[in-house]
Amino acid sequence: LLLIGDVCCTLAGVIDLAVDWMTDLKEGVCLSAFWYSHEQCCWTSNETTFEDRDKCPLWQKWSELLVNQSEGASAYILNYLMYILWALLFAFLAVSLVRVFAPYACGSGIPEIKTILSGFIIRGYLGKWTLLIKTVTLVLVVSSGLSLGKEGPLVHVACCCGNFFSSLFSKYSKNEGKRREVLSAAAAAGVSVAFGAPIGGVLFSLEEVSYYFPLKTLWRSFFAALVAAFTLRSINPFGNSRLVLFYVEYHTPWYMAELFPFILLGVFGGLWGTLFIRCNIAWCRRRKTTRLGKYPVLEVIVVTAITAIIAYPNPYTRQSTSELISELFNDCGALESSQLCDYINDPNMTRPVDDIPDRPAGVGVYTAMWQLALALIFKIVVTIFTFGMKIPSGLFIPSMAVGAIAGRMVGIGVEQLAYHHHDWIIFRNWCRPGADCVTPGLYAMVGAAACLGGVTRMTVSLVVIMFELTGGLEYIVPLMAAAVTSKWVADAFGKEGIYEAHIHLNGYPFLDVKDEFTHRTLATDVMRPRRGEPPLSVLTQDSMTVEDVETLIKETDYNGFPVVVSRDSERLIGFAQRRELILAIKNARQRQEGIVSNSIMYFTEEPPELPANSPHPLKLRRILNLSPFTVTDHTPMETVVDIFRKLGLRQCLVTRSGRLLGIITKKDVLRHMAQMANQDPESIMFN
Amino acid sequence: LLLIGDVCCTLAGVIDLAVDWMTDLKEGVCLSAFWYSHEQCCWTSNETTFEDRDKCPLWQKWSELLVNQSEGASAYILNYLMYILWALLFAFLAVSLVRVFAPYACGSGIPEIKTILSGFIIRGYLGKWTLLIKTVTLVLVVSSGLSLGKEGPLVHVACCCGNFFSSLFSKYSKNEGKRREVLSAAAAAGVSVAFGAPIGGVLFSLEEVSYYFPLKTLWRSFFAALVAAFTLRSINPFGNSRLVLFYVEYHTPWYMAELFPFILLGVFGGLWGTLFIRCNIAWCRRRKTTRLGKYPVLEVIVVTAITAIIAYPNPYTRQSTSELISELFNDCGALESSQLCDYINDPNMTRPVDDIPDRPAGVGVYTAMWQLALALIFKIVVTIFTFGMKIPSGLFIPSMAVGAIAGRMVGIGVEQLAYHHHDWIIFRNWCRPGADCVTPGLYAMVGAAACLGGVTRMTVSLVVIMFELTGGLEYIVPLMAAAVTSKWVADAFGKEGIYEAHIHLNGYPFLDVKDEFTHRTLATDVMRPRRGEPPLSVLTQDSMTVEDVETLIKETDYNGFPVVVSRDSERLIGFAQRRELILAIKNARQRQEGIVSNSIMYFTEEPPELPANSPHPLKLRRILNLSPFTVTDHTPMETVVDIFRKLGLRQCLVTRSGRLLGIITKKDVLRHMAQMANQDPESIMFN
Repeated sequence: LLLIGDVCCTLAGVIDLAVDWMTDLKEGVCLSAFWYSHEQCCWTSNETTFEDRDKCPLWQKWSELLVNQSEGASAYILNYLMYILWALLFAFLAVSLVRVFAPYACGSGIPEIKTILSGFIIRGYLGKWTLLIKTVTLVLVVSSGLSLGKEGPLVHVACCCGNFFSSLFSKYSKNEGKRREVLSAAAAAGVSVAFGAPIGGVLFSLEEVSYYFPLKTLWRSFFAALVAAFTLRSINPFGNSRLVLFYVEYHTPWYMAELFPFILLGVFGGLWGTLFIRCNIAWCRRRKTTRLGKYPVLEVIVVTAITAIIAYPNPYTRQSTSELISELFNDCGALESSQLCDYINDPNMTRPVDDIPDRPAGVGVYTAMWQLALALIFKIVVTIFTFGMKIPSGLFIPSMAVGAIAGRMVGIGVEQLAYHHHDWIIFRNWCRPGADCVTPGLYAMVGAAACLGGVTRMTVSLVVIMFELTGGLEYIVPLMAAAVTSKWVADAFGKEGIYEAHIHLNGYPFLDVKDEFTHRTLATDVMRPRRGEPPLSVLTQDSMTVEDVETLIKETDYNGFPVVVSRDSERLIGFAQRRELILAIKNARQRQEGIVSNSIMYFTEEPPELPANSPHPLKLRRILNLSPFTVTDHTPMETVVDIFRKLGLRQCLVTRSGRLLGIITKKDVLRHMAQMANQDPESIMFN
Repeated sequence: LLLIGDVCCTLAGVIDLAVDWMTDLKEGVCLSAFWYSHEQCCWTSNETTFEDRDKCPLWQKWSELLVNQSEGASAYILNYLMYILWALLFAFLAVSLVRVFAPYACGSGIPEIKTILSGFIIRGYLGKWTLLIKTVTLVLVVSSGLSLGKEGPLVHVACCCGNFFSSLFSKYSKNEGKRREVLSAAAAAGVSVAFGAPIGGVLFSLEEVSYYFPLKTLWRSFFAALVAAFTLRSINPFGNSRLVLFYVEYHTPWYMAELFPFILLGVFGGLWGTLFIRCNIAWCRRRKTTRLGKYPVLEVIVVTAITAIIAYPNPYTRQSTSELISELFNDCGALESSQLCDYINDPNMTRPVDDIPDRPAGVGVYTAMWQLALALIFKIVVTIFTFGMKIPSGLFIPSMAVGAIAGRMVGIGVEQLAYHHHDWIIFRNWCRPGADCVTPGLYAMVGAAACLGGVTRMTVSLVVIMFELTGGLEYIVPLMAAAVTSKWVADAFGKEGIYEAHIHLNGYPFLDVKDEFTHRTLATDVMRPRRGEPPLSVLTQDSMTVEDVETLIKETDYNGFPVVVSRDSERLIGFAQRRELILAIKNARQRQEGIVSNSIMYFTEEPPELPANSPHPLKLRRILNLSPFTVTDHTPMETVVDIFRKLGLRQCLVTRSGRLLGIITKKDVLRHMAQMANQDPESIMFN
């Protein structure tokens, strides 16, 4: 776990630095050393204040470098073209790498990790190649300016690390359960480093990723997150001594009346979540079923081109999404020079710098509002098409950006309303003229939480991540209120979060722990064989020959076979795995004397009594699972579903007074649940 | 849940106010209105600055009021006596109320709530009387100055509320599982209001209290905690607009080298936890087994008297424990006048107020160190004897106090070391002369976390509670490091936290989800009847008479009986509850025609074929549970323990190919686990 935490964190640091450099590479290059990002390049120069940032001489835009022009229409167009070219290059490289080397490296990876942790095996999904390619392509796609984040994929990367390290220790590589615990802990470390939110990471792993989360895993995740946080602190990628990505400091408390806009933002978040999930799933289904899915490279190129073309002219979409969020969260100090802070200052103001009263908005703010509105629409549309393409893509940052834009706009609206109408009843109590009563940055934070909540349906982990992200511990009630509202609104339109929806879309056999099964069906209604179907394929304990079994194995594709006393009594004595049967027969035929096709196979302690000249029998008790999981045919399905979930079973035998009646597999359970929810059971694909 | 959150919070607010008043009542009284606490009394007066607090004319100490003397030895002695008298009065009232009205109101209640949530029923434990008496006595005991906190009992109070409200709605009162979910949520609300830590409360409920925590409960707890936090914010008991109990603001980051003392504090916390648990359990066992337990009132009186006598002379033990913690957490500003902040100021200092460099300690600090050392020893000893008496008593605050005292002492030590030896290698990098490099208050915070962690073995919830409590989000790595070390050290000496130890001591049948069972025993080794014991008491499906069954019920005290086809075949068909059997037979004898003692009872669909003149048979299929939980005799105990835990079973039948072999109850599992851990299985009492 120490290793996992360390490596994750180092990887995350490398990714951060590389992304910084490559994002800036789209706009220009550093003359002193081309591997410096804009900020690093200008650190060494003398003009480091914010206003002069663009005038740092060592940093040259492409137009300056190529045609020695920094102003004018042609320079602008040249920069624009270079921006698009770099974006296309990065995206093309990324999608090609994914296609050629590691097809599993695409997407956010969280739905698949959820499925793996629930007990399903996807071979190679957590392999070394996936790790390598995902890391590299993640840098490329984030730099290309597509509307996606690196947080979800980092969880996948962390899980790959976890899987790699656990394969080094035999304690973990042998035991599937223990390996899953390590993976849960790795997921926690992934979120921890992605956001610099150690506790939030643990809770994310608990609430979203893990299937069954024993307390020991909590404790392990906590340790992994601690190591990650510690390493992060040593590396210090955010360039300040804080662990926090979007550190904000607000100087005013919030007021009760502000809960109303916060709840409105919660509603917006819920609606955005619903809209996003519906549209994204519809688009992904279209991609899966039509010819569109055959040209993933072209799709990525087209989306990148459109994104780059639309994004460049608007300063809020041109900058990287995390910078945007950071700017939106920020409170306007007196010295802030950004457009968003272009308020009309009272010339007579003699207050201290920290405590600025509400001011009327200047021209810059109005311009910014228009640009933000356009950016909002653009982000909403483009994110729907981006998530799910064949490149690594996370959802956290785009969702937060949508929320932060909406929140900031509402915040500025409320602020101006309060400034111009402070005699209204609602404002009178908490907003005297000349007081600082509305903090638009706080609205952006609440909006971001609401939108993230609407998409992922997180609650506790969301709030913890938000306040670890911003340090805004005092604003826990607004954040909680927005998260609750957003979840309510989104749940009213559809129970599934984006990750569950993608699991469903991809047809992974995932039994959600969150839904309740309340129907009154019994095990007998679900088990196979159904009425009229041929009887179950079973083995008898001491009367089948090797040939019989080989035929049975050839004709069916079940994972295992129940073993009964005899076909007449059908009394269950155990369960034999298909794989182990094949292996045992093969070994016996090769190494054991006298095993021929009509040797009797027996699962009992003592060999059966055979006629004198029959061939040597084959003892297979060793591979018999003597404690298969059974329920009676009268067991309510509610209980059966509960057992499947809590014990992570793949199949369960149905008996009555010891007589084998049938079998229920996880897929049967999932089909039945779909049927009960009035969905077509055949709509659930399994691949 | 809305109601629970609201009521909990209101109760907590009332308790807070009452405790404030009564704690101050021990020292004096407000002349303007006797129901004002010291602080409220002096609010109205003009001298409200900290220095003049003691000189507020409306507030009179007992000596001033009674003999009109405020200084001198006799006044001191009079005040001392009044202090002891009030403490004794409060404690006597509390213990009498508990003894007479609600014996369950004693202790912290958390061990019992854990047991209840694991599926055991303690009747009346969450009743209305317990709620009322616990609330009243909690105020009394906290005011009496005993070394105990109100946080644990508040969880119990919240659960009583939860139980009360869930009994009002038939949806919850009928379904045991749903009721438990409400109780988990209530526990979260309890911690939320106790500390003003909504997220911490949810996590505490998850990590410490709840047995099985489905995500839906997480979400409910979150809602309950939100409501509680919101109500708290409206009531505003801490008198500032923050939700935080011990709000601190530090101005310096921490340095890597400081991790060493932090980890030392973690070790101290672990050792304290071990010492406390061992001594406290030994003392409680002594109380249970010797004559000591017969005089609970006397015990409380004696402990209160000793506490009051020793506590009064030392200012750090005289003030209430939460005030003490608050003072220890505080960073010394330039204007601070308390003894702990008596540093020698540099007369030439012209820096801003916020950024005070390290200074040499003055006389006051040295005095404070001695007093703190004495207070530490006193708190350690007295807490061991206090926790477990027949009064409501929580552990959080005393543990935190022990840690905060130790931490502050270490912090001042490091600070002075750094000041006097800033040329040492370890200090040279981060501590230039004239810089503010060590914050003793931070050490107090870390120490408090470590001690609380050592006692309760919390990890994630501990860290979250600590940073919600103090707002110190930047210090997450020190807190995590201390929590991890403390847990490691404490676990090395004994796996059980204080709550598990008390569950064990009281013999509740609690199957801990945290331990792993790794032995290779099988179900057949644990089940009853064992070899040589008489066979299992079973019912047959259609051959026993009413009289036979009545005799069986009279002769045994099992909770239920397996039903088999016949004594020869012993094939299991179901399980019948004792209670339902008795009820069914009673009803049939009263209401059904022709049911006599030698009527045949049958559990099959069709009545058995009986001789012509036999009495009317009694059909009991209705009460037969057709899906009893079964395992085969070859099932490893590891799996059985897992099933018991995850499905919350009370018993499980053991079969082989459908033939009933025996039964395993939760108590058998617990006994077996004790035996495997080399403990005497008979040492586990069940009451």
